[in-house]
Amino acid sequence: MGNNYGTLFKISTFGESHGPAIGVIIDGCPAGLIIDETFIQSELDRRKPGQSKITTQRKEDDSFRILSGVFEGKSTGTPIAIVIENQDQRSKDYSHIENTFRPSHADFTYQEKYGVRDHRGGGRSSARETAARVAAGAIAKLLLRKQGVEINAYVSQVGTLKAPEYTQLDLSKTEDNIVRCPDPATAEKMIALIDQVRLDRDTIGGVVSCVIKNTPVGLGEPVFDKLHAELGKAMLSINAVKGFEYGSGFAGVELRGSQHNDEFVNEGGKIRTKTNHSGGVQGGISNGEDIYFKVAFKPVATIMQDQATVDKEGNEAVVSGKGRHDPCVVPRAVPIVEAMAALVLADFLLRNKAIRL
Amino acid sequence: MGNNYGTLFKISTFGESHGPAIGVIIDGCPAGLIIDETFIQSELDRRKPGQSKITTQRKEDDSFRILSGVFEGKSTGTPIAIVIENQDQRSKDYSHIENTFRPSHADFTYQEKYGVRDHRGGGRSSARETAARVAAGAIAKLLLRKQGVEINAYVSQVGTLKAPEYTQLDLSKTEDNIVRCPDPATAEKMIALIDQVRLDRDTIGGVVSCVIKNTPVGLGEPVFDKLHAELGKAMLSINAVKGFEYGSGFAGVELRGSQHNDEFVNEGGKIRTKTNHSGGVQGGISNGEDIYFKVAFKPVATIMQDQATVDKEGNEAVVSGKGRHDPCVVPRAVPIVEAMAALVLADFLLRNKAIRL
Amino acid sequence: MGNNYGTLFKISTFGESHGPAIGVIIDGCPAGLIIDETFIQSELDRRKPGQSKITTQRKEDDSFRILSGVFEGKSTGTPIAIVIENQDQRSKDYSHIENTFRPSHADFTYQEKYGVRDHRGGGRSSARETAARVAAGAIAKLLLRKQGVEINAYVSQVGTLKAPEYTQLDLSKTEDNIVRCPDPATAEKMIALIDQVRLDRDTIGGVVSCVIKNTPVGLGEPVFDKLHAELGKAMLSINAVKGFEYGSGFAGVELRGSQHNDEFVNEGGKIRTKTNHSGGVQGGISNGEDIYFKVAFKPVATIMQDQATVDKEGNEAVVSGKGRHDPCVVPRAVPIVEAMAALVLADFLLRNKAIRL
Amino acid sequence: MGNNYGTLFKISTFGESHGPAIGVIIDGCPAGLIIDETFIQSELDRRKPGQSKITTQRKEDDSFRILSGVFEGKSTGTPIAIVIENQDQRSKDYSHIENTFRPSHADFTYQEKYGVRDHRGGGRSSARETAARVAAGAIAKLLLRKQGVEINAYVSQVGTLKAPEYTQLDLSKTEDNIVRCPDPATAEKMIALIDQVRLDRDTIGGVVSCVIKNTPVGLGEPVFDKLHAELGKAMLSINAVKGFEYGSGFAGVELRGSQHNDEFVNEGGKIRTKTNHSGGVQGGISNGEDIYFKVAFKPVATIMQDQATVDKEGNEAVVSGKGRHDPCVVPRAVPIVEAMAALVLADFLLRNKAIRL
Repeated sequence: MGNNYGTLFKISTFGESHGPAIGVIIDGCPAGLIIDETFIQSELDRRKPGQSKITTQRKEDDSFRILSGVFEGKSTGTPIAIVIENQDQRSKDYSHIENTFRPSHADFTYQEKYGVRDHRGGGRSSARETAARVAAGAIAKLLLRKQGVEINAYVSQVGTLKAPEYTQLDLSKTEDNIVRCPDPATAEKMIALIDQVRLDRDTIGGVVSCVIKNTPVGLGEPVFDKLHAELGKAMLSINAVKGFEYGSGFAGVELRGSQHNDEFVNEGGKIRTKTNHSGGVQGGISNGEDIYFKVAFKPVATIMQDQATVDKEGNEAVVSGKGRHDPCVVPRAVPIVEAMAALVLADFLLRNKAIRL
Repeated sequence: MGNNYGTLFKISTFGESHGPAIGVIIDGCPAGLIIDETFIQSELDRRKPGQSKITTQRKEDDSFRILSGVFEGKSTGTPIAIVIENQDQRSKDYSHIENTFRPSHADFTYQEKYGVRDHRGGGRSSARETAARVAAGAIAKLLLRKQGVEINAYVSQVGTLKAPEYTQLDLSKTEDNIVRCPDPATAEKMIALIDQVRLDRDTIGGVVSCVIKNTPVGLGEPVFDKLHAELGKAMLSINAVKGFEYGSGFAGVELRGSQHNDEFVNEGGKIRTKTNHSGGVQGGISNGEDIYFKVAFKPVATIMQDQATVDKEGNEAVVSGKGRHDPCVVPRAVPIVEAMAALVLADFLLRNKAIRL
Repeated sequence: MGNNYGTLFKISTFGESHGPAIGVIIDGCPAGLIIDETFIQSELDRRKPGQSKITTQRKEDDSFRILSGVFEGKSTGTPIAIVIENQDQRSKDYSHIENTFRPSHADFTYQEKYGVRDHRGGGRSSARETAARVAAGAIAKLLLRKQGVEINAYVSQVGTLKAPEYTQLDLSKTEDNIVRCPDPATAEKMIALIDQVRLDRDTIGGVVSCVIKNTPVGLGEPVFDKLHAELGKAMLSINAVKGFEYGSGFAGVELRGSQHNDEFVNEGGKIRTKTNHSGGVQGGISNGEDIYFKVAFKPVATIMQDQATVDKEGNEAVVSGKGRHDPCVVPRAVPIVEAMAALVLADFLLRNKAIRL
Repeated sequence: MGNNYGTLFKISTFGESHGPAIGVIIDGCPAGLIIDETFIQSELDRRKPGQSKITTQRKEDDSFRILSGVFEGKSTGTPIAIVIENQDQRSKDYSHIENTFRPSHADFTYQEKYGVRDHRGGGRSSARETAARVAAGAIAKLLLRKQGVEINAYVSQVGTLKAPEYTQLDLSKTEDNIVRCPDPATAEKMIALIDQVRLDRDTIGGVVSCVIKNTPVGLGEPVFDKLHAELGKAMLSINAVKGFEYGSGFAGVELRGSQHNDEFVNEGGKIRTKTNHSGGVQGGISNGEDIYFKVAFKPVATIMQDQATVDKEGNEAVVSGKGRHDPCVVPRAVPIVEAMAALVLADFLLRNKAIRL
């Protein structure tokens, strides 16, 4: 209930932060896909903790094991199960929150909903769960690549520092720096800001932008499962996300229809739009133009400062962040955003096969 | 495929703008609920065209008929089917778009996806479909009311005109003016702006905000079906929506964790948060505080001006808006946003019943 | 919740026996299918009451209306809603069972489950609901026909009277007699038996057999959604069904593996099986051979005799069948079995499109 | 796609016979359930190979590991992942079937459907997958036990040898003998028969009966998800099953309504039925009486004899069973039938919580 995503390309994740392992079953991956394990690992490495000085210094190598669904290097059409063992389980780090609710974490709501919770590291509510999404998303990417679809996310904002719009960026440079902003000048400032925030024992929010190129026309299912609605849900399901906009987004509300409408033109025999305020989606269906969207991440809730709170019994208490945490989540969120986008598109690609006779 | 919403409180809508009828089946409404037909009609009336000078002057009374699932005024637990006949079908108004793609409409994408489309009034892609959602949402509201849950949406922005934040508004005043903005001064300016836009034969975007009070703690299902992720999907599935944010939203990314975190306090024996940047949702689960979110609507695509485009064969063409259309969609979008919010919450209310032994 | 069937070719039915109307939404019918309304009506006519002397003499013409999803005679890929108004609503006939539970009907269980029920004619539990399935099944048949798939059901048993196995029958003769048994000699005896049962103011059970020819190899989804498992569920969901078997069925348990196994042979370049104990399905997937199965129907519960029972308060009571009922349900069940088989196959046909790259 | 079962109590299985591991995720198990690992292991032991002289002599201890969802011995409401490593992987035993289709196995249909297959031991089509079901079913049983529900399956037929009806049996004796038939005299004959079949290098079919006591009134969801329809699907999804009947079943078709109807009586304030031809289910909903049904298993397809077949290219070939296989599957099928019944009931138990206000 709530741990599955997708209709035909369908994933189910499991696992707690400090339990034995986390993982994912991918059900519905078409047969015959070459499963490149090196690529899956490289995607996990982009997400893993300890990768740079501006992420948590926790060490987890996030190596994975495929238990099923792949035979002689190819998908067989049966469920692909992937398991990532948890290694760095310093559970003692968390005894202080067994009975106390950390502000802006899920401790209180899990306790109230379930009556019982694995408090260690946030248990199921930990962002560690996203490693399973990245592994599954890597397989979705392999599928999409065969259709030529390219997904590129990057950090476009940290605090008030903003990168230029994507059309002015060279997205191949995203991995050139540790903050994953393809604009070198902005990247440098972002890194300095995050470093300062870390020294302040605080955290800060940011925005991840994502651009999808070469999407075939026709993906997305009206009425409720519009392409951008599923992208929105997928992004909002990532820990710490507070907002989603695509195409002209919130800024578009200030425009007039005569400014906002994307006129159709015939470009060498191909019907395209002159502008792209629509963000590549019209009526919930891809129109072949670039799909682009932004995802807002709040500042990480765990800070290295004392905070007032209450315990299970409602008594006043103080919690202070312990352990090793990210001062800003967006650099590591880039591959997660890409993974979720890939899962959405792979699913719609398969769903679209059943639309016509 | 894509025409259903919900897991336990589940709706399936059908119908085209200019076909015989539109409607909805609600499957999973608990038995024994008093179905107040007057209330359902009043909700439909809030959405219907022709209700004021700033909406389309098209006349449709949107009267509905319940075909099943209600016996002696109460739900029986079986599917509730509701049909709204289409009355004002001036199909001839649409012959000019049979072969031509209107800019920023779904004509092109439907044609490419399905190979065939009912072009009259946008067919299935018409916002007329949302009447079915409002009817179903009214029943969801009846269910939620019994739990004390209150859902209030209102227009918070038109173009660049913005109302104050919700905590400074008296939401009982929303229906006092035709633009549905509870701040009288802003409302007046918004009405004047929309009127001007109409005279300019143009359209303009806006934002609908929504506040949900008295939600029980514990609604929402981790991991993928987080409460705010489903709200986001539900809102993004409404025609013309470009963005969704809840709680601190996009503005929250600029804050530090020490500013953003909501400390827990014991308020007369009840655990609450001192601030509410979380927007009533933590870890995807309601925490009992106000849930609040914003929904961005682009300017309506149909404008009363000539626009360049192409036809099915890719030849250059000109389309000009005909018929009677809204210069700004947000006043009529208010009950739609409420309806979708009600459907999301009703579903989670039922899903939450199966969480504990 | 229980009123939907199918994954990609998906139906939702609604309606009570004596409410305003019954109907169905078909979501996922591929675009571009010619919707032959005459054929749909002819299928409904095979199911309708009053069609012969051995069925109920109730008169309902079961004429239908398509509300959406069809444009200029073709499916558009959007939901197809079909409504059948209820005409012969002699609700007074049912006042005697408002508070009394008819033996072997669903009165008691609906009352206990929902706390409220539409008692008139059994309400939602009435076999009248199957008209909606037949209408939807007719569209599934139109889809399957384009693939060459043929579905033929017939009455193979009434009481102890059995027709020969299907391989010895000419299935084109099924509609030649009112009991729908393609063996004329057996048909005659069956008709006489049902007639006698009717005179005895009693009812009797029977078996409907079904043969599906020309199914493409590869339909059916392991592990849980095996082709025969879905066929079984679909058949068992029909009112009055008590059993399902396919291929060698219950008789197969008495055989040895060396007798039961179907050897593969190369028949002019096509891999086939020499025998077909498998019933056209191996490992839950169609192998291209004839799919055949049997469906057991109990005697109709409504009999024209006094029966002891209790009322809602648990007081002893007597009910006697009133109105006009079938002495044997199987002749009218033939098109229902075919409809459900068509819905299962159409769904698997679409699901199979997403299996390979 | 086909590897999931259930709506609220939902399982997803994965794994091939000779891959690294098999397993299951259970999503939707209510929080707070004591997870008795000893009981889970004891259920797996009832299914495991090598348990007696009449089963395969293959040795697998089927020990399992819980990776998530359980904290301090209790379910937390998050997904419970269970993994069983494959140990006895004599893959070489299967090189002879890499390119050849075993009669009445799924080799041919998997190859045609997916274009690729893991041929070792049948891969995903192997009954080894059912170990995952038994593990999940054990947890469902723990949930049902708290409601007092008891599920007892047993072998009621092997070849033509039949046990008396369940009302004449002491079901507590099922585990007293290796064939799992609670009638000692019949059990002895069955064991002798299976032994003889084994010596004949052949196999034989059988029937597993199942009786469920103390089911609450109200479980099962009309219209398509009737309790017996889901039981039927669940049973038919087990390898080698060819038929399902409940209550009076196929024999019931020979009765008249006046014989078959179950009259209601007031038994000390409780409404019950005098007879139980309905098999505890009326209108698809449990009525509180015993639920009983029969499941037909064909003879195991692998026999220790030469059989004619073809290879992938359609050339004639001969296969002969190698390795260690069951001469009759029903003794080991007993816990599988119980597991699937438990999964169906646990799901309906949760679904029923959302039916009333």
